[in-house]
Amino acid sequence: MKKNVAIIGASGYSGEELVRLLLNHPHVELTAVTSRQSAGQTVAQVFPKFASYQKSKTLRFTEPNINLLAKQAEIAFLALPHGVAAEFAVPLVQAGCIVIDLSADFRLKSVETYKEFYRHDHPAPALLKKSVYGLPEVYRKEIKGASLVASPGCYPTSVLLPIIPLLRAKLINPHSIIADSLSGVSGAGRKAELDYLFVECNESVRPYGVPKHRHLSEIEEQLSFAAGAKVAIQFTPHLIPVNRGILTTIYLAPDKHFNTPGEAASLGKKITACYKSAYGDEPFVRLLDDDALPDTKNVVGTNVIEIAWRLDPRTGRLIVMSAEDNLVKGASGQAVQSMNIRCGFPETAGLD
Amino acid sequence: MKKNVAIIGASGYSGEELVRLLLNHPHVELTAVTSRQSAGQTVAQVFPKFASYQKSKTLRFTEPNINLLAKQAEIAFLALPHGVAAEFAVPLVQAGCIVIDLSADFRLKSVETYKEFYRHDHPAPALLKKSVYGLPEVYRKEIKGASLVASPGCYPTSVLLPIIPLLRAKLINPHSIIADSLSGVSGAGRKAELDYLFVECNESVRPYGVPKHRHLSEIEEQLSFAAGAKVAIQFTPHLIPVNRGILTTIYLAPDKHFNTPGEAASLGKKITACYKSAYGDEPFVRLLDDDALPDTKNVVGTNVIEIAWRLDPRTGRLIVMSAEDNLVKGASGQAVQSMNIRCGFPETAGLD
Amino acid sequence: MKKNVAIIGASGYSGEELVRLLLNHPHVELTAVTSRQSAGQTVAQVFPKFASYQKSKTLRFTEPNINLLAKQAEIAFLALPHGVAAEFAVPLVQAGCIVIDLSADFRLKSVETYKEFYRHDHPAPALLKKSVYGLPEVYRKEIKGASLVASPGCYPTSVLLPIIPLLRAKLINPHSIIADSLSGVSGAGRKAELDYLFVECNESVRPYGVPKHRHLSEIEEQLSFAAGAKVAIQFTPHLIPVNRGILTTIYLAPDKHFNTPGEAASLGKKITACYKSAYGDEPFVRLLDDDALPDTKNVVGTNVIEIAWRLDPRTGRLIVMSAEDNLVKGASGQAVQSMNIRCGFPETAGLD
Amino acid sequence: MKKNVAIIGASGYSGEELVRLLLNHPHVELTAVTSRQSAGQTVAQVFPKFASYQKSKTLRFTEPNINLLAKQAEIAFLALPHGVAAEFAVPLVQAGCIVIDLSADFRLKSVETYKEFYRHDHPAPALLKKSVYGLPEVYRKEIKGASLVASPGCYPTSVLLPIIPLLRAKLINPHSIIADSLSGVSGAGRKAELDYLFVECNESVRPYGVPKHRHLSEIEEQLSFAAGAKVAIQFTPHLIPVNRGILTTIYLAPDKHFNTPGEAASLGKKITACYKSAYGDEPFVRLLDDDALPDTKNVVGTNVIEIAWRLDPRTGRLIVMSAEDNLVKGASGQAVQSMNIRCGFPETAGLD
Repeated sequence: MKKNVAIIGASGYSGEELVRLLLNHPHVELTAVTSRQSAGQTVAQVFPKFASYQKSKTLRFTEPNINLLAKQAEIAFLALPHGVAAEFAVPLVQAGCIVIDLSADFRLKSVETYKEFYRHDHPAPALLKKSVYGLPEVYRKEIKGASLVASPGCYPTSVLLPIIPLLRAKLINPHSIIADSLSGVSGAGRKAELDYLFVECNESVRPYGVPKHRHLSEIEEQLSFAAGAKVAIQFTPHLIPVNRGILTTIYLAPDKHFNTPGEAASLGKKITACYKSAYGDEPFVRLLDDDALPDTKNVVGTNVIEIAWRLDPRTGRLIVMSAEDNLVKGASGQAVQSMNIRCGFPETAGLD
Repeated sequence: MKKNVAIIGASGYSGEELVRLLLNHPHVELTAVTSRQSAGQTVAQVFPKFASYQKSKTLRFTEPNINLLAKQAEIAFLALPHGVAAEFAVPLVQAGCIVIDLSADFRLKSVETYKEFYRHDHPAPALLKKSVYGLPEVYRKEIKGASLVASPGCYPTSVLLPIIPLLRAKLINPHSIIADSLSGVSGAGRKAELDYLFVECNESVRPYGVPKHRHLSEIEEQLSFAAGAKVAIQFTPHLIPVNRGILTTIYLAPDKHFNTPGEAASLGKKITACYKSAYGDEPFVRLLDDDALPDTKNVVGTNVIEIAWRLDPRTGRLIVMSAEDNLVKGASGQAVQSMNIRCGFPETAGLD
Repeated sequence: MKKNVAIIGASGYSGEELVRLLLNHPHVELTAVTSRQSAGQTVAQVFPKFASYQKSKTLRFTEPNINLLAKQAEIAFLALPHGVAAEFAVPLVQAGCIVIDLSADFRLKSVETYKEFYRHDHPAPALLKKSVYGLPEVYRKEIKGASLVASPGCYPTSVLLPIIPLLRAKLINPHSIIADSLSGVSGAGRKAELDYLFVECNESVRPYGVPKHRHLSEIEEQLSFAAGAKVAIQFTPHLIPVNRGILTTIYLAPDKHFNTPGEAASLGKKITACYKSAYGDEPFVRLLDDDALPDTKNVVGTNVIEIAWRLDPRTGRLIVMSAEDNLVKGASGQAVQSMNIRCGFPETAGLD
Repeated sequence: MKKNVAIIGASGYSGEELVRLLLNHPHVELTAVTSRQSAGQTVAQVFPKFASYQKSKTLRFTEPNINLLAKQAEIAFLALPHGVAAEFAVPLVQAGCIVIDLSADFRLKSVETYKEFYRHDHPAPALLKKSVYGLPEVYRKEIKGASLVASPGCYPTSVLLPIIPLLRAKLINPHSIIADSLSGVSGAGRKAELDYLFVECNESVRPYGVPKHRHLSEIEEQLSFAAGAKVAIQFTPHLIPVNRGILTTIYLAPDKHFNTPGEAASLGKKITACYKSAYGDEPFVRLLDDDALPDTKNVVGTNVIEIAWRLDPRTGRLIVMSAEDNLVKGASGQAVQSMNIRCGFPETAGLD
């Protein structure tokens, strides 16, 4: 039997992508979508591209009503701005819903880090302790029993999946990490702001949030867990004129210097083995071989993250590159993957 | 009196940009443009966008003929592929022309490095010794007396101008340098290759040439000169869907660690002073202040390079970012700037 | 049981889209893909984006071999250049394959028109007579029994579906038709030509093939069939910087002038009824209502064509607009739709 | 001596382009720029791309103050929203300023048409009578003596320049005109609206304002003047993902049918002669010859409009195509051209 799901805050880009994925999902029934500005309209009216789904013509956006939602849905996706999500997560979890939150509200374990990056006390520290960071390749087991999944940010996913196995295997120096990320404009959300107008973004490339972007908090906390010690990294996001896609290039110092070709080959084998062991069976991680390098156009629209790496014998560094769709593996697709795990559906259901 | 100039190999993107700049230049007369595939056509036919210049309707592309060119022009710009440029540079210099070469043929001083990166012996090592690296902000004096100017590559310009002053002032560790560059597609030249088709580049972001791009050779040689010691750097180019523009983000370790806010402030002052001293009077270097970060859309179509920097007290690193138009400051504009210096024209003539 | 299918000429954009659709199709097994330049490589190597399909790692491109193909496949899709397709269609049909040809070779019934537009005699006039024009909404019955389906061009689909019902209902003057089309660059194919380089297409909008584009031949032949009389139309294609999508705006004179608001309302009702009768039950035609106008972004990636219309009381004209994905409804999706009809699969199989 | 000029409402795209053109202009001094939201900031702060102009660092945006402006400037450009411009035009003209208004407020002669399209009475009908429509190629003489120039809209310029000579020469049927226009997104202005976000425009093509766009009013009024009779036309604007550029394709019925090749050739000669006579000496109209068709990339950044035409013997129609930069010839460049004429400067001053 299908499970009933609701999307709360479904008019942004992640919300829209959730609608697409859940309308297509074989094991769930989309029973509620909320959005203050779109209340009253059908899904087909708000998103004409989904008008071919019969359901889109009958399902109407509503104002969010927690009591009602708790009755309409066994699973609730929160695609709300930071800060607002917590207001829904707390009562919905209490009402017995499985909550999958795409905001940053429950991603951190440390309330101090939360306060440092978000400038106010965490609104629900008790729930924070129970939340599970929804990176399935790392926390699959924990997700299975979670009542609240805090789905990772788009940048964090693109940085964490390439680095965590290397850190766990102690192949790299945790204090050497530099991550340089390029993101499509949908990462900024569907917000009527001058900075994200077509004319301001097209034929433009620019860094932003240098040097302390908010996503650093969850990246570093997760890397610290993997390293077993406090890790601080360099992270620079850039805005580039594509709709979707994040390309991240990561610069790392191997834990041991390699000087001879033999040492390089040996290190290379360890890296290969490390990634194969971590991701060889993962349905959504594509380890590139041979001469291939990641390209966002190969992953856009899918839940796949591509990873490739190179050792540079000239500098002694390891370079790892990843590509993902910021709205799918970086947001809504990964959230659905967590739901699949949590609910015992096949992990790739609705995602292939 | 105006000087006569020729452009040899004028049908590519750098050549086209040279045509634009030289048709507009107050002190020169464009007397010859060559291109095997466009021979016989007027400039206006090959480049309809220049049809408003009267000259474009009478000046015709010709096959390149060295003897004739030596008579037609006092100054010759070579916008030719690597390897071909040398065949023209040698006889033209001998014939007394001032040669400004936009190819890579005469950028390196070391014939060994040349061979390592280009896989064959340098075709004209004697001339190599006499060539001057055409980075005006660094070699202005030398350019004044040069018979052959080797105009820098687009990536090298975007990397060298931000780093050289810091290296000279010994503010950074020369072994810490990581440069991450994002380039528009015109950087690949006007070549009929599948990789650069609209559909292959649009909605795509990808690294390439990892980890040993050819431009590394000239970047490292110049950085080594500035540091007074051999420098190897990390450099990763990426292709992004804009026509023009390079955005480079550089990660550096300050020579001395800074731990306290006081040390950070003190280092910050040194960096400010260093850049001001190096570039405060430079017409084409824009040092950004306050909260501004570089954006390629602010420099496209101009010979300006924007530079901004940030210290990150969390990681102890210095991040420097630059933006330039790869076809102007990264190629043709800089070549014209060198010509201006060499010929005693105002340095900004034809470039503002 | 699944049917075996082959794609002949699978390395272009339509071929790639066919690979995607057929790898996903529940009722067929992709058993052969051919391409001279990619022979020997796996599908995953040629198209990294399909690497998540297990099949893509084992299925290898081969040189096209007709005898072998006839054994490997019950259904053959030809995604070949004009002229080449006929060389494969004739023997494959003879060998008993169902052939679905995406080229222009078998779209026309008149060999005279063929010669006028393609400048040489038709290579297989006998087969031409047997071919069925693969526009399912118009020729569904004929497709059911076809041995050779000539799948329509992208522009023709975008023009014919909006006009044919109006012509059949005699609501418009057949001599008044003007179709103005805007196409994404993938419509030009994956060809290494300067005109389709990123830099030449980005930030560019241009008409081409004015006034006699080759697609006119099949558009006019089909419109003439619908009108029961010879029809000549005006058609202007434009190239715009998007990967995918065709937007067509059609200007028409209603058969009877409408002057009063009452007449306009009455005509409007007839048009609504006409479209509803023609397409009300069609799974891939979306008739927009209310204030909506077509937008290519609402159909890209789908087999849907959007249609909207407006009467202009100021000029007495009817304007009809359509949007489709040139590679799906305009090419590969429609070809799969025809296969579904021909083979008795659900018409939407593999297309939703 | 230089004349002092002010730009009122300088923070939009037309305003920004005016700033660029006037900072570069040899005969004027930019003495005031106003903008409510940018008041207090320097030009360089608001538009970093202009920071290389010394003036940009000292000139500050101010709140608009009519009395002050009248003292600061002999010439005032109004780059204000429709409706607001009139509030400034009236007192500034009274104060003796030459006013060049880029809004729609004074483009129409008929107050009835104004009311029909703008839904309220014209706020300054007396001044309307004195205003001159600032299309230099048509109203050069009138502009010379104007105290208020109503600079044309971007779409109207792209439609009127190709059609007016044909109408005046009675070569076309005035009731046959259909204009299909494609505009870059800057045409929508710098407005924080969801519809113009990068993600909403990129990979999208869409018609809008069908069938009665506001610009129709001024197009039709001007065409009626040229025809000597009331003209109504069909006009469909489309939004396409480029920053700048309008491509207009116009469908026309020649006044006399042409049936034989001889008649076509004869008509062709008349059209050539008509355009040559109208525009042969115009510095900003480029009549394309041979096989060339307009392309926005050939005019972007310039004040040039490209025009080409084709006769279609199959349909008996004349197709005329134009390309312009919507912010230059379609707005600010044309406004500066009018200023040049009005002030007795060389007409191309600051525009080449």
